[in-house]
Order: sequence, then structure tokens, then C-alpha cells
Amino acid sequence: MEYSFADSVKSLNPSAIREILKYAADPEVVSLSAGNPSPEAFPTEKIAKISAGILAERPIEVLQYSTTEGYQPLRDRLTAYLKEKHSIGREFDNILITSGAQQVMELAAKVLCNPGDAAVCEAPSFIGSLNSFRSLGVELVGVPIEDDGMNMEALEQALKANNRVKFIYTIPNFQNPSGITMSMEKRRRMYELAKSFGVIIVEDNPYGDLRFEGEDVPSIKSLDEDGLVVYSGSFSKVLAPGIRVGYAVAPKPLLQKMVVCKQGEDVHTAMWPQIICERFMADAGFEAHLESLRSLYRKKARLMLSLIEEHLVPAGITYAPTQGGLFVWCRLPDGVDMPSFCKRAVIDYKVAIVPGNAFLVDENEPCQNFRLNYSTPTDEAMRKGVQRLGALAREVIKV
Amino acid sequence: MEYSFADSVKSLNPSAIREILKYAADPEVVSLSAGNPSPEAFPTEKIAKISAGILAERPIEVLQYSTTEGYQPLRDRLTAYLKEKHSIGREFDNILITSGAQQVMELAAKVLCNPGDAAVCEAPSFIGSLNSFRSLGVELVGVPIEDDGMNMEALEQALKANNRVKFIYTIPNFQNPSGITMSMEKRRRMYELAKSFGVIIVEDNPYGDLRFEGEDVPSIKSLDEDGLVVYSGSFSKVLAPGIRVGYAVAPKPLLQKMVVCKQGEDVHTAMWPQIICERFMADAGFEAHLESLRSLYRKKARLMLSLIEEHLVPAGITYAPTQGGLFVWCRLPDGVDMPSFCKRAVIDYKVAIVPGNAFLVDENEPCQNFRLNYSTPTDEAMRKGVQRLGALAREVIKV
Repeated sequence: MEYSFADSVKSLNPSAIREILKYAADPEVVSLSAGNPSPEAFPTEKIAKISAGILAERPIEVLQYSTTEGYQPLRDRLTAYLKEKHSIGREFDNILITSGAQQVMELAAKVLCNPGDAAVCEAPSFIGSLNSFRSLGVELVGVPIEDDGMNMEALEQALKANNRVKFIYTIPNFQNPSGITMSMEKRRRMYELAKSFGVIIVEDNPYGDLRFEGEDVPSIKSLDEDGLVVYSGSFSKVLAPGIRVGYAVAPKPLLQKMVVCKQGEDVHTAMWPQIICERFMADAGFEAHLESLRSLYRKKARLMLSLIEEHLVPAGITYAPTQGGLFVWCRLPDGVDMPSFCKRAVIDYKVAIVPGNAFLVDENEPCQNFRLNYSTPTDEAMRKGVQRLGALAREVIKV
Repeated sequence: MEYSFADSVKSLNPSAIREILKYAADPEVVSLSAGNPSPEAFPTEKIAKISAGILAERPIEVLQYSTTEGYQPLRDRLTAYLKEKHSIGREFDNILITSGAQQVMELAAKVLCNPGDAAVCEAPSFIGSLNSFRSLGVELVGVPIEDDGMNMEALEQALKANNRVKFIYTIPNFQNPSGITMSMEKRRRMYELAKSFGVIIVEDNPYGDLRFEGEDVPSIKSLDEDGLVVYSGSFSKVLAPGIRVGYAVAPKPLLQKMVVCKQGEDVHTAMWPQIICERFMADAGFEAHLESLRSLYRKKARLMLSLIEEHLVPAGITYAPTQGGLFVWCRLPDGVDMPSFCKRAVIDYKVAIVPGNAFLVDENEPCQNFRLNYSTPTDEAMRKGVQRLGALAREVIKV
């Protein structure tokens, strides 16, 4: 049987990262290619205790159908928390609980775009979101990223040149894969541009709470007086990704359409995860937990950066500045073939890293970058992995 | 701000059932309008015990990211179970765990249809799936349903008349809303038609295990020698809907595209629900639990049917034959205005029922039906509700 697929789905393939992960399954391979939170970060005992409590006291709430908008106590708690802590959410906004933050991107694109419409994204950007947009037939326009975020002149040009752009997709804090944070000045400029071109901003902020250095920069959503921003948050990096809970704060007319589309996707997000999140925020020491995560990742990030300084920088590799999140974005000197560097790393040196072109709108564009992760590996694995990369770099790069 | 939405989303509104449910929130209103499993059906203690076990023994598996295809032990167990018990699944098939069965319909439509392509569905059919298809710009072609399933001549005509049809959507067992089961003869015929017109069948079977009378009819998927059928199953009606676990068995090329699209929607289904399902099937007496559900719903269905015979049939209301599931599909005599009957039922007689036109492709088509549910209300509520409907019927219908 020959199957005929939707145009937007025909060319869609499993992400290149999955190919890398296949090699990473070899027990001899040290993986610096993942994007998982550290298992040390999971408050397993507290979650087990909360779970026992809710299953004893209100099992029907955990097991019965619920509303698409989400578990009301979680919606209320998040609304108050986001308002108080991050100045997010105005009268015209509402909140939707989603099955992980990925669903926010998918729903926003589904609601805003006809196939053939376009979205501007950072180049590089998170491949999961890019594939989500692609699966809906949304065309991607990549705008280069600098050390303080998207190039604003290039963004303006892109908006001028393409009147089918419906939204700008941005990860403003510790962006995946680059680790870069957008400056306040650029956030304001992006907001102004969105307003003047009449496009929406989809602000994806899974890593915002994982700053290990420097001062928080206010979200773009906190500037949103005109109802232009869909803000996406997640419990994946601050509690656990396997529970799949995220949320969107967006202007009501937009959010209401997202609710109708979510109803057609999964009716509502599973209840156990939602109630766990609500109870965890309510009385399991959420702020102290965030602080302990920051301290865990600070330690890991500093180790990674010192290893890079020791083993990779002398060989001519540079990296983008970062103050949080899970990743470091490294760059090979011009003239070194990046894809074959990554391939040799995993095959000959048994260390898995992600080739940077996987995060581009067009994977075939030239790219000198690769992504390193420091949240998943143990300290020992990180040491071993970066040492191996250093050996490969010394072999390959003629300084 | 004026928002501009995708064409397929513009006209999409929350389902009419939700409007009815608003009235149903009035504590004086008896609701026969829901579609929830009976809370008595939930094996809460067993689930609490399984949950405590997995959170103590393997919390990281519950909390960490996993693969889009689903929790491997659950995939293996379901594959073996479906093969052995229902002759479902061949060499060319594979299985995907989804966030409820609704996601199977959405993914199948996303993978198969460009906006403007069409799907044939039963008229009436499940509104959640219809809205899911609509949200992707899929045009719906309704084919009337008879006491033994879709009218096959009308199906053939529809396939002949419309070369943009990409799939046939059917709920063959105890269909929602009609309660009707498709005969074996019609299943074979539908399969033949799908084969000769080169379209896919999406077989949605959430209620198959809830037969309270008669003999099981083999699934269409069990006939699938050519790789034409996407089979969808669910734990919502046999374990609990709030955990949101469903699954698709489909030919590998189709399933692989569904996996890529699911990756862009929610990365993977939450782990706690998946592991609960696997452990429940493994050693919590799954077959005995199914038997206890059948016995619970048999009792409730028989009570409902006897109440209909007592209070509604004498007033001129008829109903479609059913042998399982959660619903009875009733029909008002010609000349009685169905929408105002339903409205008066909830406002004046304090009993909520669902107007049948909500399940049609075009809600404005004439319709004499309404749907009654017997799984959610208590026996007492059922008695009171049908009595009230009977009083309204006697007032309104001149026999």
C-alpha cells in the first residue's frame, strides 16, 4: 500500500537528535547530547507523599474526566504566582494548562496559521518547536541570534519582507540550543516590532527559573499591554518532565481558540500530574526547591565551563556566554568540518554531542556549532566527555 | 487587538454539549447528558497501591523524559493482548501510546489530510472527533447510520462523489451517540470499499469492552490484510479517563508519521498514567475488572431501558437498539421540535439531555434525536430524570 500524506507531513522526519541518541545508547559512549533535567533534581519523596495523599483523599478527582482549561486550583495558583513573581498576566489574559509546554507552541501555531503562513524564529532554535510548526505547514524564517538575542535589524527586515508572518517564536532565557539570553532592550524592541507589524509573540520560557548567575530579565509578556504575547511556561525543568505539565498565559480570544483545539487533541491534561504540580506549589517548598535546582545546575554549569576552558578553548573552540539553563553552544574554528567532527566524536572518541545544524531552519546551511549539555551527565561523565572532545579537537584543529 | 485566526479555527466553537453542561451544574438538575464512566467503576485502591509501588521502586522512570512511541512495557503488553484477544495487529503494524484516544483521531487526520481534504463519518458521530478534524481544516461528509451501522450504499456514493476523501471515521461498537453496533457484514463491506477507493479507515473503539449483551463482533482492524486501518483503543472507559491513555495500532509508515507529529504536540504521554496501565494489565486482575464493569453497566443499562419503556415509549418516543457502551439514542415523533424539547427539559423539568443535532456534521440539519447517558447518574437520579422527561413528553407530544 502506498500511503499519501499531508503535504506538511511528507518531509517531516524524526529529529536528527534521535539519530545521535542511538549512538548514545552504546554504554561506552559518554552523552553530552541530551536535554534531560538531572535525575538528582527530582523531589521524588515529596511527590510520592503528595501522590499517596491525593489518591487516598480524592481519587475520583484524579481519575475522572475534567475540563479542557485545566485543574482549577492549579490555574488559580499559577495565575497568582505568575502575577506576583513575574508581573505576567493582565485582565485580558487567561491561563490554560497543557500537556507539556510543547503543546503551547503547537496550539498557538494551529490557531494562528494557515498552511503557508510563516513564523519567525531564532536561528538556531529548539528543534521540537520547529518540527511542531512544520507539521502544521507553517514556513519558518530564521533570524540570526547574537550574544544578547535575536538581531533586531534582521527581525525587522524579515517582518517587512514577509507579510505572511503570523508570529515570532522566541526562547528569551538561556535559549535552547545557544544558552543565550535576550537583553531587556531587545525584548522591548521585539515587542514594538510585533506591535507595529501586527504579529503575535510566542514566548517560550522553560528555563527561566534556572539562572545560576546574574539578574533576571523581565519577560516580554510582562510588557504586554496590547494582548500580543502568548507566554508559555513548564514544569518539565523545575519539577519533572515525565509528568508533562505546561501552561499558556494568553489574551482570552486567543486562549479560547487554543482551548477548543486542545479539546480536539487530548480533551484535557492528565489529572494526576496537574494535581501533583498544584500540591507541590502549595505546600512542598516550591521556592526552596527552585533554589536547590539553581544551586545544582550552578555547580554543573561551572564544571562544564571550566572543562571547556581547559580542554576546548586552547584548541581553538569558542562558546556563547550563558547564565543559566542546560546548554553550552560551542563553535569550531572556520575550516573545520562540523558534521564530521560530531560524527567522529561519537564513533571514534565515544562522546555524543549535537551538531548545530539540527537546530537551523535549513539543516543544510553551513554551521560551525555544536551543543553541549551539562544537566544530564554525572560530573565524572562530563569530565571524561570534554577530555575526549579535547583530544579530538587537538587532532583535528590545526591552531 | 483584532486577532486573525487560521481559517479552520475561525468557526470552531466549544461544543454545544458544554452549554448543556452549564445548566447541568444547577444542583436541582438531573444530568443524563454526561459521557463519563461511573465513578463506581474506578479501581481506586488498586491504582493507589500500584502508584505507591512505582514511586517507591522506580521514581526516575515516572519523572524523566521518555520516548514518543510510549512506555515500552505497555506497548509490548498491549501488542500481545490485542493480538491474542482481538486478532489485532500484523507484521506491518506498530503501536503508539497516545494521550487519550482523542489524540489518535487528531494525529491520523493531521498525517492524512491537507486542509480541504475530506473524511467520511457516521451521521451522527462523536462531536470531539468531528471538532478535531474540523480544527485541521478537514471537511466532513456524514453518512446516515442504520440499526446495524452506516448505510453502505450511501458510503459508496459518498466515496464516488468525493475524491478528496482520505479516510472513513467509524465507531463500530456502541457508537457515541447512537449506541449502535455495526454488523460483521457491513464491516467487511466497509473494508472492501476502503480498499477499492484507496482510503484509510480510522476505527475508534473506546466502548468495545463494555458489551452487556450479545456476542462480540470482530473489529475491522482484524480484517486488515492490506494495511488500511488505524485502530484506536483507550483506557478511558475501562480504567479511568482522567489518566488520559489511549493507543493506536497502525501500519508502520502511517504510525511513524503519527509519532513525528505527536513529538511536536506533547513529546510523549505522561509516564505515571502509562505505567499505571501497564501494571494494572500485568497483575491487578484486568479481565476480572472488565467483567465487573460489564456487570455494572449491564445493570445500569437495563434500568435505563426499562425506564424508557415505562415513561417515554408510551408517549411516542422510540430508541435505537444497543448492546453496550454508555448511551441510548432516543427519537421524538415527527412534528415535535427537538431543540425546544431539550431546552424545556433542562429549564422547566430540570433534566439535562443532549440534543442530537450536536452530533451532526451540520448542526442546522433537521434532527429528532436526543442522547441519554446511563453510566454517570446514580440509579436514583436516572429514575428521577426519566420520569421528568416522561412528564414533559406527555405534556408536549399529542399521541
